[in-house]
Amino acid sequence: MQADPKFLRVLAGEKQARPPVWFMRQAGRYLPEYRALRASAPDFIAFCLNPEMAAEATLQPMRRFPFDASIVFADILLLPKALGQKVWFEAGEGPKLGEMPELARMKDLTGQAGEALSAVGETLKLVRAGLPADKALIGFAGAPWTVATYMIEGGSSDRSKARSYAYTNPDDLAALLDVLVEGTVDYLAMQAAAGAQALMLFESWAEALTDSLFETIVIRTHQAIIAGLRARGVQTPVIGFPRGAPALAERYAVKVPVAAVGLDTTAPLGLGQRVQALKPIQGALDPLLLRAGGPALDARVEEYLQTWGEGPYIFNLGHGILPDTPIAHVEQVLARVTGK
Amino acid sequence: MQADPKFLRVLAGEKQARPPVWFMRQAGRYLPEYRALRASAPDFIAFCLNPEMAAEATLQPMRRFPFDASIVFADILLLPKALGQKVWFEAGEGPKLGEMPELARMKDLTGQAGEALSAVGETLKLVRAGLPADKALIGFAGAPWTVATYMIEGGSSDRSKARSYAYTNPDDLAALLDVLVEGTVDYLAMQAAAGAQALMLFESWAEALTDSLFETIVIRTHQAIIAGLRARGVQTPVIGFPRGAPALAERYAVKVPVAAVGLDTTAPLGLGQRVQALKPIQGALDPLLLRAGGPALDARVEEYLQTWGEGPYIFNLGHGILPDTPIAHVEQVLARVTGK
Repeated sequence: MQADPKFLRVLAGEKQARPPVWFMRQAGRYLPEYRALRASAPDFIAFCLNPEMAAEATLQPMRRFPFDASIVFADILLLPKALGQKVWFEAGEGPKLGEMPELARMKDLTGQAGEALSAVGETLKLVRAGLPADKALIGFAGAPWTVATYMIEGGSSDRSKARSYAYTNPDDLAALLDVLVEGTVDYLAMQAAAGAQALMLFESWAEALTDSLFETIVIRTHQAIIAGLRARGVQTPVIGFPRGAPALAERYAVKVPVAAVGLDTTAPLGLGQRVQALKPIQGALDPLLLRAGGPALDARVEEYLQTWGEGPYIFNLGHGILPDTPIAHVEQVLARVTGK
Repeated sequence: MQADPKFLRVLAGEKQARPPVWFMRQAGRYLPEYRALRASAPDFIAFCLNPEMAAEATLQPMRRFPFDASIVFADILLLPKALGQKVWFEAGEGPKLGEMPELARMKDLTGQAGEALSAVGETLKLVRAGLPADKALIGFAGAPWTVATYMIEGGSSDRSKARSYAYTNPDDLAALLDVLVEGTVDYLAMQAAAGAQALMLFESWAEALTDSLFETIVIRTHQAIIAGLRARGVQTPVIGFPRGAPALAERYAVKVPVAAVGLDTTAPLGLGQRVQALKPIQGALDPLLLRAGGPALDARVEEYLQTWGEGPYIFNLGHGILPDTPIAHVEQVLARVTGK
């Protein structure tokens, strides 16, 4: 039992004197070695779909820091690409998406989403081969609503167009989400088969939703994805991350059969404890505080350790690490979390 | 007692078979008569500070709709202007602010904030004179943190610069917030003296804060403002609106001696009921749903009436009405809320 990665043991409900730790976007631009690697591949999508490069990016932070888990380097917009929508990145801007394909056409492609993204499976295999046995390997996908916001809006925005669409075209949205559920199941099942030991569902834009939209477009789709995985015999634990919806995190933990709930920076400490009574939790240090550093950073880390450390807890940020974060601040936090 | 506006009776804790109703930004661009009035004054700040025009804007929706309360037409950035920071609006863009004055200079001006903004008091007097006795008149101010985000960032943004400042310069921020507390007390006391029967504190950017920042920059400053008003003998009820922080709304209701708590669109129905056990609540229809209209709009309004109508409740939006909202949708909601 002790040979299992600590991260997986906590996902299974174990408490630890010191929580396992990893950071969202730990493979990324704050690392000079990442910037050097990334410079060798001008196109971001091609970079994500190059298993050697993506595996190298995934492993870079594992060599430098004592993280307990590694998350495959990929992007949540690979799925719409696999379903036939054009996706590209322009330097210094967010993602851009072409016109959304016909729903029937996308539906035809959902069963081949994993195959279309087999490069991500190759990355997972390469990472696993390069990762010590006591480190866990996480696969992931964007959750359907979050992916749909990009598909509907054609890129990044405040999601008000997508939320309006949810009100004006509820049936069309439900049909799109169903297609995304199917594609996500196929994609995540492929990642599990390729060696992912946990699967994270990023609902990055759960914020600004009413409780009734949250029910129909977040809770329902996450339930359907996990049911779909289980129906295919995939028992890999799932971490759900409904970012920006702390007031609905307890309801989410009760209703969605995730192994653990990711909490964002806005989750109060007491809320985390209430969710912990139901499920292990993961989170939630403010990336702005990590970047700022100093004694306030130590104090907040200590608060998480003292308060959330009492239940099953995976230390993480509440959102992705910022590109201009000093590496010394990452080291400062990791020293405190690991006690080394 | 029955002669008091229904709105004020609910603020005092009474339940009503049908809640009183008003809409944030009910005086605004969705009304053709507002657009016509506004076109006659090219500068937005000058428009706000012209009592005849601002009073006319305030009264327009009261003539057209059965709203129970009227909120003085003004802007939360009048206060930084009164404290010596340049504020202007450019067509089609958000507000712009010049360099922040020295703190000591602003501090010297806090005691004259009400006097500097006496035009808003004149507006209140004109509105009161034009308003039936059964309609309530609300004054307001931006809450210190929200106003500070604009002062620090020089305009609208995602507030990440201001939140970083809270981490890197906590003492400077605390000093700025203290100055804003003093200025806000003076400004709101003037509004109460001019006839405002309730005062609303708009913490429009309470979102994305950790619980510990929320304590120091939201709860503490709101407590200080209400204490400052009471110390000056101003007993006018205050509505606090910590927008975007539903997970902290109960804590806010317990700790801040507001008469009522405004809830935003992300407040779950069950949360509203829990806050109602402590204080009257106000909110929280999604302006995007109001704009979308249709049966989904009726269904959501009915949910609020059925669920929140059981406790003291003021029907409102969860955020300001959108400029392109059809007037027929406003009428549709008001018919359902008032039963007429």
